[in-house]
Amino acid sequence: MTASGKVKLKPGDTIGILGGGQLGRMLAIAAARLGLKCQVFSPDPDSPAFDVVLNATCAEYADVEALELFANDVDVITYEFENVPAATAMVLAARRPVLPAQKILETTQDRLIEKDFVKRLGIDTADYADVSSLESLQAAIARIGLPAVIKTRRFGYDGKGQAIVREGDDPAQVWEDLGTKSAILEAFVPFEREISVIAARSVDGHVECYDVTENEHRDHILKFSRVPAAISDELAAQARAVAEKIAHALDYVGVLGVELFVVAGNGGPHVMVNEIAPRVHNSGHWTLDGASVSQFEQHIRAIAGWPLGKPVRHGQVTMTNLIGDDILDYEQWLTVPGATVHLYGKGAPRPGRKMGHVTEVAPASKK
Amino acid sequence: MTASGKVKLKPGDTIGILGGGQLGRMLAIAAARLGLKCQVFSPDPDSPAFDVVLNATCAEYADVEALELFANDVDVITYEFENVPAATAMVLAARRPVLPAQKILETTQDRLIEKDFVKRLGIDTADYADVSSLESLQAAIARIGLPAVIKTRRFGYDGKGQAIVREGDDPAQVWEDLGTKSAILEAFVPFEREISVIAARSVDGHVECYDVTENEHRDHILKFSRVPAAISDELAAQARAVAEKIAHALDYVGVLGVELFVVAGNGGPHVMVNEIAPRVHNSGHWTLDGASVSQFEQHIRAIAGWPLGKPVRHGQVTMTNLIGDDILDYEQWLTVPGATVHLYGKGAPRPGRKMGHVTEVAPASKK
Repeated sequence: MTASGKVKLKPGDTIGILGGGQLGRMLAIAAARLGLKCQVFSPDPDSPAFDVVLNATCAEYADVEALELFANDVDVITYEFENVPAATAMVLAARRPVLPAQKILETTQDRLIEKDFVKRLGIDTADYADVSSLESLQAAIARIGLPAVIKTRRFGYDGKGQAIVREGDDPAQVWEDLGTKSAILEAFVPFEREISVIAARSVDGHVECYDVTENEHRDHILKFSRVPAAISDELAAQARAVAEKIAHALDYVGVLGVELFVVAGNGGPHVMVNEIAPRVHNSGHWTLDGASVSQFEQHIRAIAGWPLGKPVRHGQVTMTNLIGDDILDYEQWLTVPGATVHLYGKGAPRPGRKMGHVTEVAPASKK
Repeated sequence: MTASGKVKLKPGDTIGILGGGQLGRMLAIAAARLGLKCQVFSPDPDSPAFDVVLNATCAEYADVEALELFANDVDVITYEFENVPAATAMVLAARRPVLPAQKILETTQDRLIEKDFVKRLGIDTADYADVSSLESLQAAIARIGLPAVIKTRRFGYDGKGQAIVREGDDPAQVWEDLGTKSAILEAFVPFEREISVIAARSVDGHVECYDVTENEHRDHILKFSRVPAAISDELAAQARAVAEKIAHALDYVGVLGVELFVVAGNGGPHVMVNEIAPRVHNSGHWTLDGASVSQFEQHIRAIAGWPLGKPVRHGQVTMTNLIGDDILDYEQWLTVPGATVHLYGKGAPRPGRKMGHVTEVAPASKK
């Protein structure tokens, strides 16, 4: 079983998960519910996902021997984060199917390659330019205008590796502060709202999208997701079609999150892709309690070669992230009627650290 | 922390679970979602619950050293089955709080003591008699009449350890076949339907009952649960009141299942207690997908000293047990819209073995 198209697990088989954070933890729990075992690979001995599996591998992602032993123990491999090193993925893919496929990581690990990919599909994005020197930064500013956002091409998340460039800023200083020679400059998008689509695609190419989620960030970190998004049915259909197109174009197997901006236009608002996350996504956590099948279960079904579920939403849903010290309110949240509390089993609540989330479901009739 | 009234876990603390079956597995998953760790104690190396915890103890329930080490590793202890040996519970209770309390096991492990307890509360049960010899069996038959059901006082479940005694049966033969000297004879109850109430009681004595469930058995094993039961609101309130009364009388902490019969009467149907299960109960599995807080989470909250959730039901729910070869249909179930599939990660599908269950939720408006 080495070709991804042939993956077909049976109950009792084992899924290998790279990464031991809350996403890996929730994936492992979803797999357990379907009678599948998981083995988690993570360099962090305090990985929250280790708590919910019998077998864990605590080793560096560059440890080839550990990777090989891990691969031998499992039937299919997936990951909870997009920054899986290429060499790691290669070692594993030589032994077991890795889903979503390794080439998808290459596209989504690099903002420039990702943007080019989206653009080639005829999907709207913010204007952007490759920036690899002070000169190319100056040229990009001249073309795109200010304000704009400079982002490292790789390893950015939750606002890390990016900065706003404003009228009057010194480009030389901006370039020095960034500390990398591999970046893009993106036009600043005056969006009306931020939305996302969580889509699942099965081995046989079937796609199921969840209802469009509206997201609110605080300090670049997702704070609230609300479903359904307060947009027209037409725009929601447009957003879902974008996600579906991307999933097909990547020959994707598993769950992906597509972040979009809703932008005003002469012919009414339209959507613009911001980012693709080749994994389960924070803005899809509401599906654990607000839908008949969660994004975690959909991902497991997809990579197991099983049929996707047809998600039915239970009502109007709000997901609140518990970030840093928010976790200290857990007992108060436990008493809110209809609220479901998820704590990730992490240690100290550092600022900006995602410690848990809460889902609240109100009957559908309210919408 | 040795008095049960003082249990108050914090996220990251560890719950010890005696028993490694599907109930222990689902308890451990519920605990993980709340940021609590679990350690499972079970003599069976293939225990389904071992798959979802980092630390497992595989040892006999009589292994005092293993019990002591296990107790030292955890902050509170609970169990997934009522037949925990008294000596086991005693060893553990000397070191850590055991919830529900050990004395509750004494009441519910013995059908005679349990029936006496229910009767003392003024709650209706089938007519019954202590049977410890052929003579007392004959006397019981004379008083109660036939048909009747003879049951071993201890260790019965899923129809094991019981037999119907019919007109014309030879009491001497019945007595010999039973193979124990400790039994009760129960009047045969011509019930209209079988229902159950899943109730949770917190450390501070607060009780939350789920909506009454209607149960359908096949070969003495639960096959379907449907919620709400097709009974009047008045009768449902009566059933819940019975469960609440029992929970208070036992000074119970955790979730318990109370099985009842609905019996026709001159003044309309009334309820009669059949059995008390001092644990999460198969007829409460629907709460995993059909309610805002599951019976497993309620149990964990209760034994953690946390506030109970206020359960909100998502609609009209049907739970179907996958028994034995039923499991072979799992892929078909995966394609049913709105159905949620739970597989227990057990090995071979032996006849009568509970392998998984499926929940289907229909919008509440249908009722």
